[in-house]
Amino acid sequence: MAIITLTTDFGEKDHFAGATKGAIYSELPDVRIVDISHNVSPFSIPEAAYIIQNAYISFPKGTIHIIGIDSEINPENKHIALKLDDHYFICANNGIMSMICSEIAPEKIVEINIHDKIQTSFPVLDVFVKVACHIARGGTLEVIGKTIKDIKPIKNIVPYVNDDKSQIIGSIIYIDNYGNVVTNIKRSFFETIQKGRDFEISARHYKFKKIYNKYSDIVNFEIAEEKRQDEGRGLVVFNSGNFLEIAVYKSNSATVGSASTLMGLGLMDTVSINFITKPISNLENDLLQIASKTRDY
Amino acid sequence: MAIITLTTDFGEKDHFAGATKGAIYSELPDVRIVDISHNVSPFSIPEAAYIIQNAYISFPKGTIHIIGIDSEINPENKHIALKLDDHYFICANNGIMSMICSEIAPEKIVEINIHDKIQTSFPVLDVFVKVACHIARGGTLEVIGKTIKDIKPIKNIVPYVNDDKSQIIGSIIYIDNYGNVVTNIKRSFFETIQKGRDFEISARHYKFKKIYNKYSDIVNFEIAEEKRQDEGRGLVVFNSGNFLEIAVYKSNSATVGSASTLMGLGLMDTVSINFITKPISNLENDLLQIASKTRDY
Amino acid sequence: MAIITLTTDFGEKDHFAGATKGAIYSELPDVRIVDISHNVSPFSIPEAAYIIQNAYISFPKGTIHIIGIDSEINPENKHIALKLDDHYFICANNGIMSMICSEIAPEKIVEINIHDKIQTSFPVLDVFVKVACHIARGGTLEVIGKTIKDIKPIKNIVPYVNDDKSQIIGSIIYIDNYGNVVTNIKRSFFETIQKGRDFEISARHYKFKKIYNKYSDIVNFEIAEEKRQDEGRGLVVFNSGNFLEIAVYKSNSATVGSASTLMGLGLMDTVSINFITKPISNLENDLLQIASKTRDY
Repeated sequence: MAIITLTTDFGEKDHFAGATKGAIYSELPDVRIVDISHNVSPFSIPEAAYIIQNAYISFPKGTIHIIGIDSEINPENKHIALKLDDHYFICANNGIMSMICSEIAPEKIVEINIHDKIQTSFPVLDVFVKVACHIARGGTLEVIGKTIKDIKPIKNIVPYVNDDKSQIIGSIIYIDNYGNVVTNIKRSFFETIQKGRDFEISARHYKFKKIYNKYSDIVNFEIAEEKRQDEGRGLVVFNSGNFLEIAVYKSNSATVGSASTLMGLGLMDTVSINFITKPISNLENDLLQIASKTRDY
Repeated sequence: MAIITLTTDFGEKDHFAGATKGAIYSELPDVRIVDISHNVSPFSIPEAAYIIQNAYISFPKGTIHIIGIDSEINPENKHIALKLDDHYFICANNGIMSMICSEIAPEKIVEINIHDKIQTSFPVLDVFVKVACHIARGGTLEVIGKTIKDIKPIKNIVPYVNDDKSQIIGSIIYIDNYGNVVTNIKRSFFETIQKGRDFEISARHYKFKKIYNKYSDIVNFEIAEEKRQDEGRGLVVFNSGNFLEIAVYKSNSATVGSASTLMGLGLMDTVSINFITKPISNLENDLLQIASKTRDY
Repeated sequence: MAIITLTTDFGEKDHFAGATKGAIYSELPDVRIVDISHNVSPFSIPEAAYIIQNAYISFPKGTIHIIGIDSEINPENKHIALKLDDHYFICANNGIMSMICSEIAPEKIVEINIHDKIQTSFPVLDVFVKVACHIARGGTLEVIGKTIKDIKPIKNIVPYVNDDKSQIIGSIIYIDNYGNVVTNIKRSFFETIQKGRDFEISARHYKFKKIYNKYSDIVNFEIAEEKRQDEGRGLVVFNSGNFLEIAVYKSNSATVGSASTLMGLGLMDTVSINFITKPISNLENDLLQIASKTRDY
């Protein structure tokens, strides 16, 4: 059974997501629809790009992903369908796919032209559903559009590195449900520049010298539980999507606070990493090795 | 496979929606359950009426819609099941269905009486699920209730027109995820009164003389992108449900603002349309034709 | 077809819930996934315990429940799988299951050990999904872990009763979507202590002498509708999960107010019940009988 996922800024209250599902089932009774998110901030292309990049990879090959963010067609915002990593993506050509495409080259991109005469303020319902069902029935991309070479990029997706490679300057691209702030610095990118050196991560006036692999690695379990003061402490991890993330242990933005609320870190804020080139001791090296060990799933 | 949809004010946190789905699968393993919305404002009948009217139409004929808003049974709030437009609706007789029924006459209405002895504070779980599964198994409405003629109306669902048809007075019935404010003035109603005349739409001290078919129609794409100032501009559209809506281009209530936040428009606020009877020029007429062209899907 | 439910604190925006579903479908194409809640407050074990206890019971026997709250594995937070009441539960051993287990003894508990080498900050995706799919395919608990006897308790789950049984002191453990405040006092517990006596329920300076079976039982339908003033009145009910709950009739925290906002009642606040031992009249007794009649579904 084909799987169609939905990632939109429709919210959870309005009829938009429900109507979209109804339209899919009307065309294709035997399909599985999975909500990835309907809570992308309205018109936020970077948020949508981050969410779909982290979600799609868990789905089976052949899954069809509808992304409904800023998708009204106009002379500067065409609709596209892509095949990439054996998944299909249907969205507006507004930069949403540029984060994934910067890591994995698409096999095929088409600009959708089946609907040149449709006047619609609800293109997900009127266009994307038709395209998704066409693909789910085994249809090819060529039938629904003309092949194009490139998609529209989004700016500031890649962090900046200075000439002598002593500094990475990244930025915060996403704030998650726990108020953790996610940067655009990926583990593989960081390690390529780091080459085993010591480092200091700065965000506003907060400094970190270590990157953890999971949140509770900050806790020293040899100290008795009632004497520990880890809850509320800041830390840096490579999150499950391998992005460098500044977190607060057991955070809750609404009560005890979070990286976002306690450190005052917001979208687009700068996070920089300075590398220290002095020779490092064996002990320090060992610690770094442990801290940067590759996640293994 | 039968489809059962859920539209409730349960919210997304509590166990209510999950328990309801569990109860449906316990009765009927082979059914498809689709959430339309669980975020109707608590006890808001107009919101539920607007959402279900706009969502149901996309679903296949035969779909069964459970609407759980203010559904506790009491002497003044009986449970009903309706067949209308080849869809089934199960809800309390509290006005929710009157918006749809004002446009399409129900084929059949029954007042549910299978549960006269059930004392329950969770009627969706204890009653509506049973009725929905009965219908999904092919059961008739007659078996679960006695036929009634009329349902309870809700007030102020239809806009007011003055005697000489120079003015429509409508009101805001819904605010969507983008902060766009939706009025109770439908395209067909507007066009019947308008008869090609010029008009001025007023909401508080904001005035509009044009109604668009989609949001980006406000943009002049001949101006270079960096010189345009369309984001944040107010406009009027017939939305995808054909309701007259006051919107702000690329709005976000939480950041740049929206029609609701920027213009201070709230639920039940008045929106009026004054028609201008002076003869209109050919050019103006052409423009109006373009602006009121019927959406075509 | 196996059913896997999800109860987490992932929220509805991030990719976590979508990625989890994708991972399940990748392992097991023919499964039904049901969201119970992704809006548990971050790291709130009591909230998760309350939600899963009230939701699971509606699902068919054999359903597999994944509970992803505070589930990062560490020396003090092991992963467990339980069979209880013919349902399966997969979660961290952090107290979430102690509310259900205090009422129904688990048939089997295992501490999961298939993943001793997995370093992960996303255990729901990397561990719980694998365990759930193993069970869904008919696998036994013994294969994925070693049997243990006890699970970690949570504190304050049971209300306090004084020595002469003249007083119950409970606390508020959950606030629902309507702002109703739910206590840890269950109907069966209350009735065991009450033994037909009159009582007075106190929360802050609010007092109640009656417990209803449904919300609209507070309304006197013999008074004409326009003369009634029931909306906004406080009342006490045994809710659909049989917990004692302080509610406000037709409440909405965002507009007219709710038990939580109007009475200033919050999580962990005390609710006490004082029993009155004077002999009660026949009439009063009859009223109490009616008010405490067991819910019957």
